[in-house]
Amino acid sequence: MAQHNAFYAQSGGVTAVINASACGVIEACREAPEHIGKVYAGRNGIIGALTEDLIDVSQESDETIAALRHTPGGAFGSCRYKLKDIDTHRAQYERLIEVFKAHDIRYFFYNGGGDSADTCLKVSQLSEKMGYPLTAIHVPKTVDNDLPITDCSPGFGSVAKYIATSTLEASLDIASMCATSTKVFVLEVMGRHAGWIAAAGGLAGQGEGEPPHVIIFPEIAFDREAVMARVEYCVREYGYCVMVVSEGARYEDGTFLADAGNTDAFGHRQLGGVAPTVAGMVKQDLGYKYHWAVADYLQRAARHLASKTDVEQAYAVGREAVALALAGKNSMMPAIRRLSPSPYQWDVISAPLAKIANRETFMPRDFISENGFGITQACRDHLSPLIQGEDFPPFKNGLPVVAKPRLEKVDKRLPEFTL
Amino acid sequence: MAQHNAFYAQSGGVTAVINASACGVIEACREAPEHIGKVYAGRNGIIGALTEDLIDVSQESDETIAALRHTPGGAFGSCRYKLKDIDTHRAQYERLIEVFKAHDIRYFFYNGGGDSADTCLKVSQLSEKMGYPLTAIHVPKTVDNDLPITDCSPGFGSVAKYIATSTLEASLDIASMCATSTKVFVLEVMGRHAGWIAAAGGLAGQGEGEPPHVIIFPEIAFDREAVMARVEYCVREYGYCVMVVSEGARYEDGTFLADAGNTDAFGHRQLGGVAPTVAGMVKQDLGYKYHWAVADYLQRAARHLASKTDVEQAYAVGREAVALALAGKNSMMPAIRRLSPSPYQWDVISAPLAKIANRETFMPRDFISENGFGITQACRDHLSPLIQGEDFPPFKNGLPVVAKPRLEKVDKRLPEFTL
Repeated sequence: MAQHNAFYAQSGGVTAVINASACGVIEACREAPEHIGKVYAGRNGIIGALTEDLIDVSQESDETIAALRHTPGGAFGSCRYKLKDIDTHRAQYERLIEVFKAHDIRYFFYNGGGDSADTCLKVSQLSEKMGYPLTAIHVPKTVDNDLPITDCSPGFGSVAKYIATSTLEASLDIASMCATSTKVFVLEVMGRHAGWIAAAGGLAGQGEGEPPHVIIFPEIAFDREAVMARVEYCVREYGYCVMVVSEGARYEDGTFLADAGNTDAFGHRQLGGVAPTVAGMVKQDLGYKYHWAVADYLQRAARHLASKTDVEQAYAVGREAVALALAGKNSMMPAIRRLSPSPYQWDVISAPLAKIANRETFMPRDFISENGFGITQACRDHLSPLIQGEDFPPFKNGLPVVAKPRLEKVDKRLPEFTL
Repeated sequence: MAQHNAFYAQSGGVTAVINASACGVIEACREAPEHIGKVYAGRNGIIGALTEDLIDVSQESDETIAALRHTPGGAFGSCRYKLKDIDTHRAQYERLIEVFKAHDIRYFFYNGGGDSADTCLKVSQLSEKMGYPLTAIHVPKTVDNDLPITDCSPGFGSVAKYIATSTLEASLDIASMCATSTKVFVLEVMGRHAGWIAAAGGLAGQGEGEPPHVIIFPEIAFDREAVMARVEYCVREYGYCVMVVSEGARYEDGTFLADAGNTDAFGHRQLGGVAPTVAGMVKQDLGYKYHWAVADYLQRAARHLASKTDVEQAYAVGREAVALALAGKNSMMPAIRRLSPSPYQWDVISAPLAKIANRETFMPRDFISENGFGITQACRDHLSPLIQGEDFPPFKNGLPVVAKPRLEKVDKRLPEFTL
């Protein structure tokens, strides 16, 4: 096997551990110099490939690459850019192959979620049609935990640990204050389509009275009366009520709570998220004093509280992607397989992209308690292993140390390309 | 010196390390059995004393007390309850002395901010007038960092570390996404009157282009045009803009941004905080895609990311409070003294409560950069030592381990008292 170059890009919303996958890919490539020459990273994801804006990763020291393992965000830039339909916008796909050809790239590692798995598959199919020998491997990543086949999506475990920990900590805060002050605390978490992250908040408590007392899942239609009755019950019984609310919470008719047509005094759409919306209902219907928090980027960037399990899995799928490519596998994705639930044991298998692309998975209904406000033991057993272990980054001057890659540009060899 | 009992209570908003002070007080009391008998804690702060709702801390194991050091929130309950004016509502103060008498309490340790320092002082003065020998010591605590004399307020350093770290992490996230997606990220932090916590966000970056690019302090009147011009400049120059906004941000006329009279479609006051308000301005004036987060309780409960310096100081002032009491000092507060700026060295001195009560300190103007959007080197030098060091709690099953005190009630000896 002769030596050829590899391309790596990050796609979609980043995570606390997507750079750990980058680290795995790059380190594994560096260990195979007989097959893989340089690694080029796409600046800002696939856009970097389309515009021939490549980063020469060989200019980065081993120390910098190792530091990616504990650096959140996407070190090479990511993008929200979905390649268009291949039949009508074939030019984009052909351009990718041209760029790969121009830089002798024969390995394509694409680190993303369901959409990018689809892109990866199409690029692979087209390169085959065009007679260009490309090995395309998808590296799984998404905080939403909605990829099929794999036991979990790298990135999810760390968000889950952050949300469970934050719920636990904030619950102790409100429990101290509730006698004379705040009665209800609402934490808004990510997950527009599936309640996995909201469910992770449920790991903070165990028994009936332990917070969080109310979880609002996108999977369960929001019934204001039922929710408020439950909140009132909790405040009466436990003195306070902690709510974890998914940003995807919606009414029976599918309307998002956070997008229910409320406008401010100037007639603009209300800017608030679902947390202030729910907190407002609490105030209006029950009169309780509330606090609310919106974790937003903090949750998916919180590398300081990453799950060790998640970091290890993210790194492992990165390495395995290279192993698959070197073994001549094409159009595949490394996936996590759960070998044993307790103690949690896992390995990495491979799955064909055709079975991954464009298939979302949702929370099973039996992971949500009968009243719709909590998680079941089955859910707890499933999620708990994913937040196990800590993997604190090094700190300097009180702050986490992060990688500072040089991001050297590769000289262009092709004419401009307009997106 | 004969043996008498001690009373300890927590007051006002809790912090990640107020229980470390409790730990210091209780451990020091346990080491002085010749002088101090039992420690009674007020359930829900001073209300516990008024209503004779006391917790028998002697029922808690040494392990539980040690675990308080790494448990956020207020283990015995806190309250937002300011004792009324002593001249017209003397009965409340007299009731406190009665409860202390009934339970042979001669040491009063009150853990709170400026208001509770005032209460502590008044209780001390009244006990003297009434001829009851009480030693009253205030234990400092507040995330707002607004107590005089002390170098910092225990509780602040940990919030500062959390906000600086979260700003750093979220900045890496948006930096990855800005090419095709979010251009502006707004993080709302606590601090209604002073910008100390917002300033701590500034520790995340160093140079001109490093995030956060814009800090909005309560001390600087909000000028929408100037702020938006700065945001636009940052997006143009750096590709994105990270903003740290204090909840106390206000217009020239003193109106809070978050309370600017906006109402929703139902005519209710807009529920949003200042982050969605500022994000809305960004959208409206500049058209940029934004994300926003509101840290709320998460920031002051985040014991998992506490500053080691802060934990040590919180514990030290707890212990020193007992030492002061045993030395016969009355109406005093242990305070942190900065002995050396770099390396940061500190010790604990004592300050008379008359110099503490009802005196807030604010950020010096020369801690804020000339344009009003950043911190100066002087501010950085002052704040940086306070976030130094990590003091991670133990974890079990992926979550921080917290103390679970038994909170055994002490039998009442007095008639009911109505607040």
